[in-house]
Amino acid sequence: MATSYPVDSVGLVSPQSVTFNTPLELDGGHTLESFELAYETYGTLNADASNAVLVCHALSGTHHAAGYHADDDRKPGWWEACIGPGKPLDTERFFVVCSNNLGGCHGSTGPTSLNPATGQPYGADFPLVTVRDWVRSQALLADHLGIQRWAAVAGGSLGGMQALQWAIDLPDRVANVVAIAAAPRLSAQNIAFNEVARQAIRSDPEFHEGRYQQAGDRPRRGLMLARMLGHITYLSEAAMREKFGRDQRGANGDYGYNFDVEFEVESYLRYQGQSFVDRFDANTYLLMTKALDYFDPAAEYGGDLGQALAHTRSRYFVASFTSDWRFPPSASREIVRALLDTNKSVSYAEIEADHGHDAFLMPVPQYLDTFTAFMRGINLGAAA
Amino acid sequence: MATSYPVDSVGLVSPQSVTFNTPLELDGGHTLESFELAYETYGTLNADASNAVLVCHALSGTHHAAGYHADDDRKPGWWEACIGPGKPLDTERFFVVCSNNLGGCHGSTGPTSLNPATGQPYGADFPLVTVRDWVRSQALLADHLGIQRWAAVAGGSLGGMQALQWAIDLPDRVANVVAIAAAPRLSAQNIAFNEVARQAIRSDPEFHEGRYQQAGDRPRRGLMLARMLGHITYLSEAAMREKFGRDQRGANGDYGYNFDVEFEVESYLRYQGQSFVDRFDANTYLLMTKALDYFDPAAEYGGDLGQALAHTRSRYFVASFTSDWRFPPSASREIVRALLDTNKSVSYAEIEADHGHDAFLMPVPQYLDTFTAFMRGINLGAAA
Repeated sequence: MATSYPVDSVGLVSPQSVTFNTPLELDGGHTLESFELAYETYGTLNADASNAVLVCHALSGTHHAAGYHADDDRKPGWWEACIGPGKPLDTERFFVVCSNNLGGCHGSTGPTSLNPATGQPYGADFPLVTVRDWVRSQALLADHLGIQRWAAVAGGSLGGMQALQWAIDLPDRVANVVAIAAAPRLSAQNIAFNEVARQAIRSDPEFHEGRYQQAGDRPRRGLMLARMLGHITYLSEAAMREKFGRDQRGANGDYGYNFDVEFEVESYLRYQGQSFVDRFDANTYLLMTKALDYFDPAAEYGGDLGQALAHTRSRYFVASFTSDWRFPPSASREIVRALLDTNKSVSYAEIEADHGHDAFLMPVPQYLDTFTAFMRGINLGAAA
Repeated sequence: MATSYPVDSVGLVSPQSVTFNTPLELDGGHTLESFELAYETYGTLNADASNAVLVCHALSGTHHAAGYHADDDRKPGWWEACIGPGKPLDTERFFVVCSNNLGGCHGSTGPTSLNPATGQPYGADFPLVTVRDWVRSQALLADHLGIQRWAAVAGGSLGGMQALQWAIDLPDRVANVVAIAAAPRLSAQNIAFNEVARQAIRSDPEFHEGRYQQAGDRPRRGLMLARMLGHITYLSEAAMREKFGRDQRGANGDYGYNFDVEFEVESYLRYQGQSFVDRFDANTYLLMTKALDYFDPAAEYGGDLGQALAHTRSRYFVASFTSDWRFPPSASREIVRALLDTNKSVSYAEIEADHGHDAFLMPVPQYLDTFTAFMRGINLGAAA
């Protein structure tokens, strides 16, 4: 029986993988002698390889950005709202690539992979990686795919920061940058939330100093807490109010006077936490939060973001969402201001949306329309 | 050697305690056959007992609201900014009383107390209590002290909610209400943070289903996480930025590429979490968060806060702080609007302050001045 996918979906997709035997030197001083990247592609690369778009994922994302892995898949890839025929990243026109970040837990080399030096999973021995390390590793993927210059590097949240880092580190290889709901660096409050998440994981007795795989164990409780906390920061106060309010699970409105789930919001968070534990690795979560904390491209330019971006050769699309308190419009405006200060071509959309940070994953009309307009304005095959 | 205290401090104070052998029926259906309340008083009760002010504490507060317990005390009581000679709650004029809430862990009967039925600590068997239960228990304290009617019931945060509940439940016994940085009920986001804190404690293996005292153990990690998380919500994003920014502990600005403390904000949170564990009980923390979640006086009036407050006979002082995102000005405005709707006498101050929710503990000039002005306007000895 043939399953039909929505006409604006890329439909059935298959993950791919490539192993690089080139040593990769990491910012932290370690060298990976070889590593694997899992990735997916959607659309067709054109003859002069000028229509390729790299999509970068956020903290807990994967290379599965669009389409379905099987006919009975209940959910498509994480950026289905933005990738597909007629969507902003129009697969009739663009060849879209998304890779699982190095250090991930969905096919790319990371803490759950075997360490060739020991024959055991890396676990806590997997080195911390930075956003720059991700750019380095993805540049090898671009070489592998025969892509000299991306028509665009795009992402939301941490993925948007990664897109900025691409333009900074390899200016000749990025024609356009799409940075949605991103920030030039994490605030003290952002770092604080990350630190509580890390402490939740690392203080879980089943964390075993990060060697839980060898111990046949997993820090489920810690990772669940980290995810519950994350979800609070992904939603706006208004979205939570609208979605849950003070609604109780029981119909009669009486209180239970115990610690069972009582309010809908508690049920939602527990469910989100529990389901995350089944699909994510705690060491990967830890290193992703550190990569976020460390991201601060202005730092080596005396804190001047404009100077960090001055030498870049991309056009930019920046978008933020009014109710996003994780990476609020003020953070995006700082990026835009730095780009304007150095006379870069930048389009900026501050989008009215109640969904909080999660809005970057959602089909908010103004967001899709402005994103589409920017992508349509990209002149494929233009000289660098 | 005589120690000198600041002239505007109440100086050396001693906690007191009273045991009530009157059965206390709780909202949750349990009855406590007897219970003890720890409290402190500052100033002198006047002849007609018309100058008494009840101070209600917040989530992690105690009855030690002002002054010092010993000459070498490094910190005074938690509301030292507001209680003392010449301060808003002027001890030259008022007799100020503060009790540790029932269910607390600083002298009042609570989870760490011995359950007379078993001879063991109550632990998880201590019943959940509500803000109304606290009012009931404090009414017995008022009787014990010979106070028929409080000149004012005052508090910040949860303490401010308790002051509102006093006016609602015992309208003839409250002449004035002072509700600082309070809210008419918790938002979904507030409940969500509480739920993560509860899960952190309850999922700690050393929680032992709440019977950790019998097990000779304590859920230190869980309580530490709960407190770290709490601190993020007590400070504003701006206060965190100003206090810590992205400052690193090491001087050279290099990253460590490990999970040691790296940013100042991490150090602050870990310290706050660790020191809290030594002075607070996890079961008390759990029940305090539930009392907060349950507080919703409008609920039994079809959600109409004005109706809940209509029969009260108090004058009101409500204050909020612009950078408080835990109980923001919009929450206080809702209280003020409900009071105006039912023609109550209400003063409201929306105070510009960068400190977030914690501002209610701090000597913010506009806050102290408006609070003082309201208290000076109280006509002692006026007929009910």
